[in-house]
Amino acid sequence: MPSEPEQGEQRRPALVPEPTLYRLPIYLTYLKLALKAGQKYVSSTKMAREMGVDPTQVTKDLGHTAIVGKTRVGYEVESLISVLETFLRFNTVEYGYLFGAGSLGTALLLDHGLAQFGFSIKAAFDINPDKVGLNIGGTTIYHLDDFGRVKKPDVKIGILTVPVDQAQCVADLMIDGGLTAIWNFTSFRIRVPDGVVVQNTSLYAHLAVIFNRLHAKE
Amino acid sequence: MPSEPEQGEQRRPALVPEPTLYRLPIYLTYLKLALKAGQKYVSSTKMAREMGVDPTQVTKDLGHTAIVGKTRVGYEVESLISVLETFLRFNTVEYGYLFGAGSLGTALLLDHGLAQFGFSIKAAFDINPDKVGLNIGGTTIYHLDDFGRVKKPDVKIGILTVPVDQAQCVADLMIDGGLTAIWNFTSFRIRVPDGVVVQNTSLYAHLAVIFNRLHAKE
Repeated sequence: MPSEPEQGEQRRPALVPEPTLYRLPIYLTYLKLALKAGQKYVSSTKMAREMGVDPTQVTKDLGHTAIVGKTRVGYEVESLISVLETFLRFNTVEYGYLFGAGSLGTALLLDHGLAQFGFSIKAAFDINPDKVGLNIGGTTIYHLDDFGRVKKPDVKIGILTVPVDQAQCVADLMIDGGLTAIWNFTSFRIRVPDGVVVQNTSLYAHLAVIFNRLHAKE
Repeated sequence: MPSEPEQGEQRRPALVPEPTLYRLPIYLTYLKLALKAGQKYVSSTKMAREMGVDPTQVTKDLGHTAIVGKTRVGYEVESLISVLETFLRFNTVEYGYLFGAGSLGTALLLDHGLAQFGFSIKAAFDINPDKVGLNIGGTTIYHLDDFGRVKKPDVKIGILTVPVDQAQCVADLMIDGGLTAIWNFTSFRIRVPDGVVVQNTSLYAHLAVIFNRLHAKE
């Protein structure tokens, strides 16, 4: 399917802007809590106010999905949750592999949160003989050399949690093995061929922001 | 100290732009690998090319620090590392508390990476009787009710990893207890008084981006 221009009218646009994709899960969390509290309908104005976001932003973000609000009553909370979960692909399970079962990798293997958002780690790979063969949180750790043998063709996502000096070579290996999306938790900027999706999530860079903001106030 | 306008000439500007603060740790990682590989000097052009960033961006980002490059040879790698570490406050230890020792909280307690970037979790708090009293990765888990008793006045940062429906009330409690910076890992947008620093790190929102990018290609 070729890429399509972003249009609010389309049922599932090919590419949704990154800031929208960051905000939609926040809306989803808000809506689930509203539903739990017994709310049936919610307006974008109310959502915006309670989340501290601009109301036109909420309307625009939701415009990327197929949902339509009713004049005066707003959106039906339950339908909006279901539309968002489908739109974000949080209600189907996507599998991935993890590379590097160090402390951060182990942390992700033990985190139950990923499953709730439709992601499951099918297998992990490491080179440390003390790790290979272990089962962490239900996931088996294989030797990195066995990736080609273990890999299933339908798995496309790889999580990169290796030491920074291994990041590029392991990323190359992931791509050679057929993975087309890399969730990079290292602070190394990997180089990948066109068409490979890279999502950088550098926890430690967020610390830099906190430190700066905290001390700038003093 | 009042906020100052951003100026490259100043030794430590009060507020550094967030995108710069996200990029500087990436440069630091690159430089440490370059040093390990025996490189003594590096130009911003070379750095930019190898990291896939715009060269003027690199120069501008580094302009926030006090470092000065030499014409032709560029920056001295070792000094640049030291300047960046000091600027980002990665070479001193900042303490914080963790709220919510569930799977993500436990993950952070076990992660050695934070320590390398100058952050150490001094104590954790939870309400689950099965968790209270445990020691995870060297950190004691206290009951949330004991926060006031356990808290030291010099600790300002709190990590929020509680369930979303507890996020606001625990955030309020953190602020009442004197914390002035909250690292929010939940997908709930907490409301805080002016002057409290909030850094949102929603891992699961990044999944939404990966899923969208991956399926947009198909």
